[in-house]
Amino acid sequence: MTVQEPAPSGVITITTDFGHQGPFVGVMKGRILGRFPQARLIDLTHEILVHWPAEAGFWLSRAFQYFPPGTVHVAVVDPGVGTSRDILVVSAGGHLFTAPDNGLLAPIVARHPQAGIVRLRGEGLQRLKIHHASATFHGRDIFAPVAAELAAGHCRIEELGEPVSADSLVPAWVEEPLVEPASVTGLIITIDHFGNLITNIDGHLIERFRLPLVHAGHHAVPLLRTYGDTRPGQYLALVNSFGVLEIARAEQSAAEGLGLGRGAPVVVRDRTK
Amino acid sequence: MTVQEPAPSGVITITTDFGHQGPFVGVMKGRILGRFPQARLIDLTHEILVHWPAEAGFWLSRAFQYFPPGTVHVAVVDPGVGTSRDILVVSAGGHLFTAPDNGLLAPIVARHPQAGIVRLRGEGLQRLKIHHASATFHGRDIFAPVAAELAAGHCRIEELGEPVSADSLVPAWVEEPLVEPASVTGLIITIDHFGNLITNIDGHLIERFRLPLVHAGHHAVPLLRTYGDTRPGQYLALVNSFGVLEIARAEQSAAEGLGLGRGAPVVVRDRTK
Amino acid sequence: MTVQEPAPSGVITITTDFGHQGPFVGVMKGRILGRFPQARLIDLTHEILVHWPAEAGFWLSRAFQYFPPGTVHVAVVDPGVGTSRDILVVSAGGHLFTAPDNGLLAPIVARHPQAGIVRLRGEGLQRLKIHHASATFHGRDIFAPVAAELAAGHCRIEELGEPVSADSLVPAWVEEPLVEPASVTGLIITIDHFGNLITNIDGHLIERFRLPLVHAGHHAVPLLRTYGDTRPGQYLALVNSFGVLEIARAEQSAAEGLGLGRGAPVVVRDRTK
Repeated sequence: MTVQEPAPSGVITITTDFGHQGPFVGVMKGRILGRFPQARLIDLTHEILVHWPAEAGFWLSRAFQYFPPGTVHVAVVDPGVGTSRDILVVSAGGHLFTAPDNGLLAPIVARHPQAGIVRLRGEGLQRLKIHHASATFHGRDIFAPVAAELAAGHCRIEELGEPVSADSLVPAWVEEPLVEPASVTGLIITIDHFGNLITNIDGHLIERFRLPLVHAGHHAVPLLRTYGDTRPGQYLALVNSFGVLEIARAEQSAAEGLGLGRGAPVVVRDRTK
Repeated sequence: MTVQEPAPSGVITITTDFGHQGPFVGVMKGRILGRFPQARLIDLTHEILVHWPAEAGFWLSRAFQYFPPGTVHVAVVDPGVGTSRDILVVSAGGHLFTAPDNGLLAPIVARHPQAGIVRLRGEGLQRLKIHHASATFHGRDIFAPVAAELAAGHCRIEELGEPVSADSLVPAWVEEPLVEPASVTGLIITIDHFGNLITNIDGHLIERFRLPLVHAGHHAVPLLRTYGDTRPGQYLALVNSFGVLEIARAEQSAAEGLGLGRGAPVVVRDRTK
Repeated sequence: MTVQEPAPSGVITITTDFGHQGPFVGVMKGRILGRFPQARLIDLTHEILVHWPAEAGFWLSRAFQYFPPGTVHVAVVDPGVGTSRDILVVSAGGHLFTAPDNGLLAPIVARHPQAGIVRLRGEGLQRLKIHHASATFHGRDIFAPVAAELAAGHCRIEELGEPVSADSLVPAWVEEPLVEPASVTGLIITIDHFGNLITNIDGHLIERFRLPLVHAGHHAVPLLRTYGDTRPGQYLALVNSFGVLEIARAEQSAAEGLGLGRGAPVVVRDRTK
């Protein structure tokens, strides 16, 4: 297999569940700059729900396209650090991704059947002169140097390990939405700072519904175009700027109002059926 | 009108109410780097009180001068996104600003009578090849590319739309302080991480008071020079490093101690009168 | 004394207790870019416990080595701002550091007996054309420009003030761990986003213990290698990726579970003795 690889943009995005306490993200950046001083480093988010790779994979799969082609996206949500879990490097959609093999990259791979996937091997680490890794912080000791070398164009992903098929990866933590003739069932995958409840239901899945009604908790809310299309305090659903269904409350927090969080089921029903 | 424009510094500051959950600020940066790879991106703050443009405008008007001349400041606190609200580009004090026309830039415009103000038009967007905008995320789809093009020096603000007068803008959300012979009345406009209560009262307004006493809630506190000028736990007021009146509690949080928040009135009285 | 100084890397790290509300960190960066436009700015953390220099010094002393040699590290946890406290510039381990003389840099100096230490003087400020400083924000008015000039290689630290000995500095806020034949006593110095309790006890201090048991609060926990080495919900201790003892709870928060915070004592005992 020859993996198709884009010319590097020099941009690296970083996604973690590390929050902002302590120097954890900072030292990853320090390690990157040590190997690739010209790297342009962008924080995607560090507020992924602790130990829930599904949210990181969701955001990566929806956000990567807004970065220049040839960007390297490193994502470290890694409850299995120090155990025998593998590390993946993926080339998909003109971008590169590296993350633990724990389901995090499943949404990327699912949407890109042509993706090139490599399982990082000891020889790959040696080639990159990554000799010592702590048991508890591979973000700093492995992912940061790998991302730096890829973004600098110092290596091709094929040189890092064994090409593998998508079937061999650890599967996603959440199922794809269930699509039935008169309904689509998904779940809340993330919540933004405004308290909007963002689902894993792609807007395309409900385009065919003439009179969609969105059910979440004990509420049923109408599908509108934007927050301003209803009165303050009213609930609404919309297909948001990342192309997925979102439940909102105009000028307020839907998360607080509905008492719902990540993982809660959401069903869209077509009232005409 | 010919708008006076500074040579671009290549620096872009970003101010939002997006918080740090999700990739919202990150994708704005991705879009900027796609158009202007050399941009130097600085987060001013993303913790503006949700949907309160007044706080963003206050901080911008007080902070912009600490950046190199020719910096572009983009501010997205945008409760009206997707409705018919306009977008402004302003040249003032040797810097450029872009934000929704919702009062956010009023403190900048009020302090710079010579400001050049342009209302972004469809032709301006076309000139910048901004063709598609979502209904809910103009930060990514409009503000980021506009900021990138301005910071790269690819366009002049006059090319983006119609020059308009300051009178035609949506007014500020909070009134300027009320200045009377023996008192000045303003309000708490923001709170910092230490719990200091920062007002919109410029220090110049109370310079003439010989014995100023600052009233907030049920408390009256003296005006001192710095936090160390009183004992731990004592309340004090001072003219802070941004030139405005601030109420603090030495080594503690005035916000917690006084139970006051944004919008609470503050009165400075001259005890000699 | 001639202070040994590394060639500058152009990287500056910033550590504060400013949090993310308001533009405080942003304007420090603006001031740096005004003097040194090529600076590469990295946030170490801004979530240091308010007014507790000990935590900032701990993290700096453990994290600086992951940045390129010749990096400038500026740390502003500064309860004494505006009083007569001094400002230090330190060259140690191939890096430069600047911070208030309030014990913050004590962990750096203690670990580097060869460190060059300079107390910033008025003539040094004049040489750098730092003429006006507010009473309450030296981060912006002094530390940022000093860091910029050092990182740009515009001055040597000897030109900034008087070389002083380590004895003359304000001492650390927390004692070094107490080392006894069958025990080592330290304290919790910081907590990460996962709720791991990180101590100031270096792993080397307990290497000689054959059967170490870690006591914190009313709990005694075993020393393991990584989080995955026990069952979810179980407490464990480990020597973490920064080389210090940490108390964790597998897949949960030890901080919440044990109800312990910064400053709480931790004792490691050797059960064979």
